[in-house]
Amino acid sequence: MIRYPIELSLENRNISEVWVNTEDDRLGRVIVKMGARFHKRPAELAADTTTNREFAYEFLKAHPCDYVIMINPTSPLLRKETFNQFVSYVRENDFDVVLSVISEKEETFFRGQPLNFKQQEKINSQFLEPVEKIVWAMTAWKRSYFLKMQEEGNNPIFGYMGNMARFSIPKDEACDLDTEEDWRIAEGILKARAENQGEKRYLNLE
Amino acid sequence: MIRYPIELSLENRNISEVWVNTEDDRLGRVIVKMGARFHKRPAELAADTTTNREFAYEFLKAHPCDYVIMINPTSPLLRKETFNQFVSYVRENDFDVVLSVISEKEETFFRGQPLNFKQQEKINSQFLEPVEKIVWAMTAWKRSYFLKMQEEGNNPIFGYMGNMARFSIPKDEACDLDTEEDWRIAEGILKARAENQGEKRYLNLE
Repeated sequence: MIRYPIELSLENRNISEVWVNTEDDRLGRVIVKMGARFHKRPAELAADTTTNREFAYEFLKAHPCDYVIMINPTSPLLRKETFNQFVSYVRENDFDVVLSVISEKEETFFRGQPLNFKQQEKINSQFLEPVEKIVWAMTAWKRSYFLKMQEEGNNPIFGYMGNMARFSIPKDEACDLDTEEDWRIAEGILKARAENQGEKRYLNLE
Repeated sequence: MIRYPIELSLENRNISEVWVNTEDDRLGRVIVKMGARFHKRPAELAADTTTNREFAYEFLKAHPCDYVIMINPTSPLLRKETFNQFVSYVRENDFDVVLSVISEKEETFFRGQPLNFKQQEKINSQFLEPVEKIVWAMTAWKRSYFLKMQEEGNNPIFGYMGNMARFSIPKDEACDLDTEEDWRIAEGILKARAENQGEKRYLNLE
């Protein structure tokens, strides 16, 4: 699980440093062999209740940079091309925060009420307004914004009071391994992808 | 694809008649062998632009019943237990329309604005208000409501002016085969399920 985001990051030439943020010395030694650097997270920030706000702040204080891009190791479905597009998007713009989202055009309810459709009429789903769900596959924060917000007692995670962008990624890359159901879905998608690739290779041999 | 919803329906004792609604005579003969009945849909309602509102109305006029439950043949991931729960839910209540939804507690944007969260604070996702997305895996309409609405020029599909309920189904059962991406996901999930079942069978032999 940890190897995959390390490889994605090492292969992208726009990324100058690849760090793994963990409190675990054994894991630290392993990831150094994979070519990443080891940021030793303080033990008090390694609890189940630790937020990404807390550990990103501790990390950013220690490492001067323009942006940090957090890749979630529980997102094994993220494709290399999508990751590279995300990095380029961050580089070519000047946002304080870039969040990954899945954008869906489906009839949606919120608080029991239709959100993006009317009960009176059914319209083709391509004309529905999209609903965007944050996924944590990858997130970019500008260091200067993050430190300033945090030190003023504000939450930098979602781009509050800043310049925030949403970057849409394909639905089948967004699975965050949390529940057993997520595992099942991810496992299935990876198998299907592997088979599709196998098939293509076979056809190329003709 | 068509065999699966027919089998689900035939195995449920609360369902008195199982019909396939198609304009295709060859398909009609095949599904009769599977134990379902063949509702011959008029050719003018077999276009790509035909809505479920149109063909459900034509069907319901022809078949007296309490409810029609439409199962989408492009939903191969729907589990038997979920389908049976849905049928019982329809029977034990008195709704005009029961829609299937996926309910998700994730930070969501609509029209570029946070919908169920505040940028100022990150809260545990279990405390987020859910966002519910309609899926067409299965839908129940009360016949009397549907005919009345349709004949008054109103849209019955979403329960407009009626008593509508949303029935939440697990995320991994909701895939509607529409895009290539959907195929990939469905294929993957079915493979993962099949493997998990294989594993269980093996363990049972011990």
